[in-house]
Amino acid sequence: MKIIKDGTITNVKGIKAAGISAQLKKSGKKDLALIYSGKKAVSAAVFTKNLVKAAPIILNMENIKNGNTQAIIVNSGNANSCTGETGLENAKKMTEFAANELGLKKEEILVQSTGIIGVQLDMKKIETGISKICKEISKDGGNDAAAAIMTTDTFTKQICAEIEIDGKTVTVAGMAKGSGMIHPNMATMLAFTVTDVNIEKSLLQKIFSEITDSTFNMISVDGDTSTNDMACVIANGASENKKIVDENSEGYSKFKEALYFVNQELAKLIAKDGEGATKLIEVTVTGAKSKKDAQKVAKSVITSSLFKAAVFGEDPNWGRILCAVGYSEAELIVDKINIFLGNDTNALQKGVQVAKNGMGIEFDNEKAVKILKNEKVEILIELNDGEFSSTAWGCDLSYDYVKINAEYHT
Amino acid sequence: MKIIKDGTITNVKGIKAAGISAQLKKSGKKDLALIYSGKKAVSAAVFTKNLVKAAPIILNMENIKNGNTQAIIVNSGNANSCTGETGLENAKKMTEFAANELGLKKEEILVQSTGIIGVQLDMKKIETGISKICKEISKDGGNDAAAAIMTTDTFTKQICAEIEIDGKTVTVAGMAKGSGMIHPNMATMLAFTVTDVNIEKSLLQKIFSEITDSTFNMISVDGDTSTNDMACVIANGASENKKIVDENSEGYSKFKEALYFVNQELAKLIAKDGEGATKLIEVTVTGAKSKKDAQKVAKSVITSSLFKAAVFGEDPNWGRILCAVGYSEAELIVDKINIFLGNDTNALQKGVQVAKNGMGIEFDNEKAVKILKNEKVEILIELNDGEFSSTAWGCDLSYDYVKINAEYHT
Repeated sequence: MKIIKDGTITNVKGIKAAGISAQLKKSGKKDLALIYSGKKAVSAAVFTKNLVKAAPIILNMENIKNGNTQAIIVNSGNANSCTGETGLENAKKMTEFAANELGLKKEEILVQSTGIIGVQLDMKKIETGISKICKEISKDGGNDAAAAIMTTDTFTKQICAEIEIDGKTVTVAGMAKGSGMIHPNMATMLAFTVTDVNIEKSLLQKIFSEITDSTFNMISVDGDTSTNDMACVIANGASENKKIVDENSEGYSKFKEALYFVNQELAKLIAKDGEGATKLIEVTVTGAKSKKDAQKVAKSVITSSLFKAAVFGEDPNWGRILCAVGYSEAELIVDKINIFLGNDTNALQKGVQVAKNGMGIEFDNEKAVKILKNEKVEILIELNDGEFSSTAWGCDLSYDYVKINAEYHT
Repeated sequence: MKIIKDGTITNVKGIKAAGISAQLKKSGKKDLALIYSGKKAVSAAVFTKNLVKAAPIILNMENIKNGNTQAIIVNSGNANSCTGETGLENAKKMTEFAANELGLKKEEILVQSTGIIGVQLDMKKIETGISKICKEISKDGGNDAAAAIMTTDTFTKQICAEIEIDGKTVTVAGMAKGSGMIHPNMATMLAFTVTDVNIEKSLLQKIFSEITDSTFNMISVDGDTSTNDMACVIANGASENKKIVDENSEGYSKFKEALYFVNQELAKLIAKDGEGATKLIEVTVTGAKSKKDAQKVAKSVITSSLFKAAVFGEDPNWGRILCAVGYSEAELIVDKINIFLGNDTNALQKGVQVAKNGMGIEFDNEKAVKILKNEKVEILIELNDGEFSSTAWGCDLSYDYVKINAEYHT
């Protein structure tokens, strides 16, 4: 697998994109993105499990059923959530406007919105914006599209990888937004992956659901599961590899690995750019009785406000880690637990051991603090009670998280 | 029921107390408390569900079995948690030291510790301290005892109420500590209630467990369930009311109401004094399908970092409330939900309605902001789908929460 530096979604054959300002954001920053596949494509998606589902989510859950998505229209600045029938009508209109301009069926379009909850979209601006953006899509629009989906994000989140299947170059690329209300449950806040792989529709959904569980579902910024969470993938077959129809084929494995890599990198970028974050935290749990137990422990630690504040303060307060392990509701034996503060090159390379058999041990405090000064802080928790592992990503809890979210938005 | 202004635990007949410095805290502040009943007493307690249980918890779970507790010894400055066999031995020694001085069996003593996790107690200081404090207990020691259990608390948490049963005055009084790592699961961080009621032991435990579920278990400061959570009650019968042996008696009802009141007030004081808190938040949920569903919704909202930061910022961002309702995992119908920002006199007196049938509505923004400027912010969520209600208490998320918890503690 080859990582394409500065690659965007338009590195994928047959994919065009654009990002413009439709004047939805007061700042005048880009707020409308379009991803378009000139070629028929198959698609898969996962959505928020929050019972409060934003209008675009409700519509997409219908539109994804055919599994043939050729375009995604996304606005930022307004989440179109808790907006009732009018909101749902507006989401439908967004797909209709785009369908008319692009010559597609409206069911072939997914729609997303991100921003404030509970305010109706300005459909005049949306209509003008969609008309404009459909004319602007190009092979150079990847960066603009990634910028247009940002809200409190401080950088665009993009990743692009290439693999070879049957002698054909297959590209997998994605873009995402994150920052706040990030604690995905079966999906995450806006992650769009495109690929030119040629694959059976049912296999694409299968792979994507599996991957989501270990990538987007393993990050947390603030424990709040959004009403708009969604991750999707479009595969348009433009690479002309022999169609992947078998789970045991080499092509399947290679593609899954690349898609996993792209989604994991997007998940990490979202965690790293969590609201107010100064550090990316990676918590790896090994030796769990089951995958579910490993995930519970990793998620519990990455979500602990006390642990996150300690990382912000560069305080090797391992008691807070063990405490969060203890209330994770995972099956485990406290007396078997070891905790290490890792280093920034490899989570599994043990750093400073701070707890052994569920108890504190003497450790080199200076070295521990040095590890916590890294931009990426790795924690290793050995449960020593089984064969399963899991990794979760998050960020520290800083003054700026409070500042960003205590600001008056209306 | 009569609330005794400035009442302390020593208002209860037969109860003496003291609070001293045993030099465990570097600051020299009080760090050792003793509560003592001169009369044989019955007791009940609930403990943390965290799998990581501090040494005192493990010991108390044994000692409470006999249900005859006559003294509680508590230190602050060190949690004696994650301290292994040595920690457990030290907890035992604390009860032995106190038993010797007080002429009790060591099983008649409960012990608690609160402060840093993972450091062994200085037993020399503890021994000297216990020897001293046992000589200092008096009818004036209530305030000192309440002060000696504080860590990052900014005020002592005490409440005292009187009722009359069979013509006898019965007093119920309690003290607690809170502040951080507050998200109790079947118990909370150190709440001690004493009463001179005369009651059957089994009834006391029954009442206490029920009450805990709606009081201490309904508060959250930061979502972190501590390793040391414990709430207990001692009843010494000194009021000489006719022994309560029947659940259907008037005495039972009256006593339960008083104990409920005392514990609820302590729970609210803990929430109000959450680390960095500027406001007490009270979330009331009505119309739920079950008590469990009502509690899930109330706890989900009170725990949401985004909601808490919005309250700190006095931002009527109801979308964050509805979002947290949606991911609470309670059974509910989004389209039936109404949300009100209440006022500071009565949670059930509706204030400004901000959402109706699961959607935003136009509201008087100025009035909404004014409500959020109160020291106590009340939220009312009507699910309109059943008969059950619940209330949860918490606090806002401020810069100071981060500051307090990012400070280097070692």
